[in-house]
Amino acid sequence: MSTPEKSIGVAVLGLGNVGSEVVRIIRDSAPDLAARIGAPLELRGVAVRNVSADRGLPVEMLTDNVEELVSRADVDLVVEVMGPVEPARKAILTALEGGKSVVTANKALLAQSTGELAQAAERAHVDLYFEAAVAGAIPVIRPLTQSLAGDTVLRVAGIVNGTTNYILSEMASTGADYSSALADASALGYAEADPTADVEGYDAAAKAAILASIAFHTRVTADDVYREGISKITPEDFESAKALGCTIKLLSICERVTGSDGQQRVSARVYPALVPLSHPLATVNGAFNAVVVEAEAAGRLMFYGQGAGGAPTASAVMGDLVMAARNRVQGGRGPRESKYAQLPIAPMGVIPTRYYVSMTVADRPGVLSSVAAEFAKREVSIAEVRQEGISGGSGARIVVVTHRATDAALSETVAALADHDAVQEVNSVLRLEGTAE
Amino acid sequence: MSTPEKSIGVAVLGLGNVGSEVVRIIRDSAPDLAARIGAPLELRGVAVRNVSADRGLPVEMLTDNVEELVSRADVDLVVEVMGPVEPARKAILTALEGGKSVVTANKALLAQSTGELAQAAERAHVDLYFEAAVAGAIPVIRPLTQSLAGDTVLRVAGIVNGTTNYILSEMASTGADYSSALADASALGYAEADPTADVEGYDAAAKAAILASIAFHTRVTADDVYREGISKITPEDFESAKALGCTIKLLSICERVTGSDGQQRVSARVYPALVPLSHPLATVNGAFNAVVVEAEAAGRLMFYGQGAGGAPTASAVMGDLVMAARNRVQGGRGPRESKYAQLPIAPMGVIPTRYYVSMTVADRPGVLSSVAAEFAKREVSIAEVRQEGISGGSGARIVVVTHRATDAALSETVAALADHDAVQEVNSVLRLEGTAE
Repeated sequence: MSTPEKSIGVAVLGLGNVGSEVVRIIRDSAPDLAARIGAPLELRGVAVRNVSADRGLPVEMLTDNVEELVSRADVDLVVEVMGPVEPARKAILTALEGGKSVVTANKALLAQSTGELAQAAERAHVDLYFEAAVAGAIPVIRPLTQSLAGDTVLRVAGIVNGTTNYILSEMASTGADYSSALADASALGYAEADPTADVEGYDAAAKAAILASIAFHTRVTADDVYREGISKITPEDFESAKALGCTIKLLSICERVTGSDGQQRVSARVYPALVPLSHPLATVNGAFNAVVVEAEAAGRLMFYGQGAGGAPTASAVMGDLVMAARNRVQGGRGPRESKYAQLPIAPMGVIPTRYYVSMTVADRPGVLSSVAAEFAKREVSIAEVRQEGISGGSGARIVVVTHRATDAALSETVAALADHDAVQEVNSVLRLEGTAE
Repeated sequence: MSTPEKSIGVAVLGLGNVGSEVVRIIRDSAPDLAARIGAPLELRGVAVRNVSADRGLPVEMLTDNVEELVSRADVDLVVEVMGPVEPARKAILTALEGGKSVVTANKALLAQSTGELAQAAERAHVDLYFEAAVAGAIPVIRPLTQSLAGDTVLRVAGIVNGTTNYILSEMASTGADYSSALADASALGYAEADPTADVEGYDAAAKAAILASIAFHTRVTADDVYREGISKITPEDFESAKALGCTIKLLSICERVTGSDGQQRVSARVYPALVPLSHPLATVNGAFNAVVVEAEAAGRLMFYGQGAGGAPTASAVMGDLVMAARNRVQGGRGPRESKYAQLPIAPMGVIPTRYYVSMTVADRPGVLSSVAAEFAKREVSIAEVRQEGISGGSGARIVVVTHRATDAALSETVAALADHDAVQEVNSVLRLEGTAE
């Protein structure tokens, strides 16, 4: 009689779209998973808020006592997909301290507490994996931490929030305004009842913090990320973008910048930006995500796929789960947090980018020249100016596209324009990304 | 006085474009690499064919004795980037048997001897990594083996040969014929003196074998891969493709297919195919590579980047080298070969694809109908027919696009058409990929 292989016990916290799909795969693909891991994966319990609801799972499998579940001696791995920062943080810390490896998709938590969680994993000599926290099914974390481990990452730029990308794609293709595109997104389930975290860029900023942390071996939290949302984007901005051969996308950008003092710093920022239609990110539409990585030796790489949804996110969770389980069977663990560089964070004011400024001005001679002078005074060099009449209106519209300038110089310029007597209103200030100069 | 950290000794075999860049990174990025690995990486020696040539390296670092270098006690890791199957195979086996981990970019060797090498690595309990063997800098191997380890891969389709993609892109954009596009590629250094391995699809087939092996947990060799090259593609094929809203790409396709007997099999194949312009692979031009992976839960993912060249390939080698070194420092090893499924190989005859058939026919009434009858007789259903006069010629040109049919049914149809008295010549038979039906 042969001894049965010791199984690997799994606890799943949360049974929403992702959790249900993770549970389904663990059950339906059991033989395949066992072969890949070298031991069977066994579901020990699932934490839910309400155990009485019918979940299609044996009732003894369900519990509302998260802390008890993650402390069980027969649980080796914990999958956290329940969402908010608390009680997820506490549950993950308990699990790690109890010697369990953890797989989480909780970007808000990671962007706030990455140091704390990574240290707890380190102390307990267990794995903390989070591929699903950024860009759903798209492998981004593992390529950055492993495949590019011998290269120097220069820049990561991505579309990592499906809700805003759906809204912006809709505005671009139909000419809809922000509110009606948001309403459509809500009706289709792409936006939550309170869409703030998505449309104001908080979700994208959390992901930028995670990407910057691993790309630059530096701990970056969501608070370090400069952030602008999409709620002020107008159909007129899309019209101007189109005239300039661009579209508008909410980008999460992480960059290694070298200051005039020679010091390398990390810039992490989220904002809507004009992107040339020829840029690979311009064609990423709807709920899709894409991340472009530029590294010294590798050049430009792009990763593209479904950034959200139960099944795609579960795919990423399952990849992490299999790797953590395999490490457990082989008595090892995967690569640890690599935070040796600890570069300082670059303040937004010093980051040079190109700008698009749209304003309504008095329709009289000399205005264009005096507006241009405000840019010149602050050494903001203009690349392109377009002046358009406003149908039925009493003013004209001037759109200025600048060469690279610092945020500080541009902010001063915009403040001066707002006070300028020929300028009725500065309608929009957006950045332009993905061009050479 | 503190004991210095034990360093990790590296031997590099081959000092071409990739080897030189690997050596450069090991030397220039030493502090970063040491921080990521947890110990310094030290170059112990480089194997070259001719030690007398000036290589910018201390002469005592160079050797033409590969076997001696890979057997040295102070070498922990071996990077094999010297190219041909032999003597690389022997050197890698010696290294693995001596307990050294190996990183190789040698796709021809891997596609021939993957089982032998994987078993040697297994016996010695060391790592065998080969991210650089497929699609240069683009992380594909690691995402397939790790990120998708909990998912079920259905299909991998990629443009993984830069030479042929350059030639086909050139033919598409300039209308050039095959010979002159090949001559251009040679002049620019994109094609080798003997281009056979690239243009006849051998290189793409080796990569398909490697991708199929890891995607489907089955050992697939280059001999198992159905293969057609691009040397017969004509400007007329590109004209017809354009009229059909397509371009032509050399694709490496690996697919999980379920036969009428319910048995799952692996299909691995390389051929030039019509691809709709709206498909993500259609816009991958020049020397770029891209791989599209479709998995059950993850949906469709795409990986894009530079598929060849010294620096991009070195980036992939360095990622593997850092991971292997880290495993060594931590006393473990990475995931092993996963070959448990061992699905049988599907014969090409049973694979259903869509076809494009171009033929020159007599320009007289009734020909179209009798040609169409040949398809119908073999139950090959026609989706679209185009008939064009040939300028100054005595015949007409008929282009037929079919619905899905098996290779066997289509081959019979083409044989019958070739014998048909109204058909002067069957000019081209190409597959159509990336469409729904």
